Amino acid sequence: MTEQIATNVHWHDGEVSRDDRYRTLGQKGATLWFTGFSGSGKSTVAVALEQALMRRSRLSYRLDGDNIRLGINKNLGFSAADRTENIRRIGEVGKLFADAGIIVLSSFISPYRADRDSVRALHQEGGLDFIEIYVDCPLDEAERRDPKGLYKKARAGQIKNFTGIDDPYEAPNAPELVLKTAEMTLSQEVDAIIELMIQRGILFSA
Amino acid sequence: MTEQIATNVHWHDGEVSRDDRYRTLGQKGATLWFTGFSGSGKSTVAVALEQALMRRSRLSYRLDGDNIRLGINKNLGFSAADRTENIRRIGEVGKLFADAGIIVLSSFISPYRADRDSVRALHQEGGLDFIEIYVDCPLDEAERRDPKGLYKKARAGQIKNFTGIDDPYEAPNAPELVLKTAEMTLSQEVDAIIELMIQRGILFSA
Repeated sequence: MTEQIATNVHWHDGEVSRDDRYRTLGQKGATLWFTGFSGSGKSTVAVALEQALMRRSRLSYRLDGDNIRLGINKNLGFSAADRTENIRRIGEVGKLFADAGIIVLSSFISPYRADRDSVRALHQEGGLDFIEIYVDCPLDEAERRDPKGLYKKARAGQIKNFTGIDDPYEAPNAPELVLKTAEMTLSQEVDAIIELMIQRGILFSA
Repeated sequence: MTEQIATNVHWHDGEVSRDDRYRTLGQKGATLWFTGFSGSGKSTVAVALEQALMRRSRLSYRLDGDNIRLGINKNLGFSAADRTENIRRIGEVGKLFADAGIIVLSSFISPYRADRDSVRALHQEGGLDFIEIYVDCPLDEAERRDPKGLYKKARAGQIKNFTGIDDPYEAPNAPELVLKTAEMTLSQEVDAIIELMIQRGILFSA
């Protein structure tokens, strides 16, 4: 088996690199982190962006409550510790996807600055892009939209610790992008993100 | 904002599907799960396969101790409960990657049948391919190789609960593929996996 061990070394020398994957995909992996109130428009813009990228044959993947809270984080609740662990795991998953060359679109309220900053640090340590996008919609507008009826339940006391009602939202201090969704059209929002991705070299061309 | 909500519905109708991603990548997402003793050759074949796929411009991504135990699972130890949670989370990460269209190469000893079967069930529920590859190397051969010096430490009692020494390994009952790494060359192993992936429609052509 001495030959096989020598072969292993050879193969390990030739490990596929992050850059190999980036070249194959025509894009750099990155995590785009959408943060904002429930109803602010995070998922809406993520879905629209995903489609705009697919039209350009670019690969993105959305992480949201549907595929995270029911999957890898199904053993987490809503205590402070569990919320932090929720965001930490999402950040780690995002980091793996970005390393694989995928553009991750992560849509979670993620109300605490420290949690988001930890995810940013995690990406920076790994030499990966982290783009914080503040989906900035006034609370009264988000509550007026109330697409899932959650504000109504929170006001009625049926949901506790609801961000904006009885739990704080800490806006980003220095997000890479701010989307004022009560003032911008959806295509303006998508265009703004794509322009930023080109500037940052995440998309190699328009 | 009534217009915006109407637009949202439009965009949600047009969500990018799994098939859209598969078409763009020219492959189906899937999880290839390599299981076997420490030193059996799991990572060696995963690294070689990753390179062979890249030569065909196919996108795969390796999950292993390096990027999992130091990342998403860094808050887990080696108790029975933590080992199960370790494999559960890896399975959920694999499922997300497979849904994104990536071919996941997951290399973990994963000694317990029930844990591996849970990951299989998770993929099946999600309509995703799970390919269990038993990296079948006799214990005495794996111990003779001992690439990380772990068997030596386990025999000396410096590592407890080491699979094959003082913790059991439960071989798969019906793996999709068996690689006898003490008898096959590395390129025979890679070819066998690629042939299976073509048969299963994971790779659309050779």
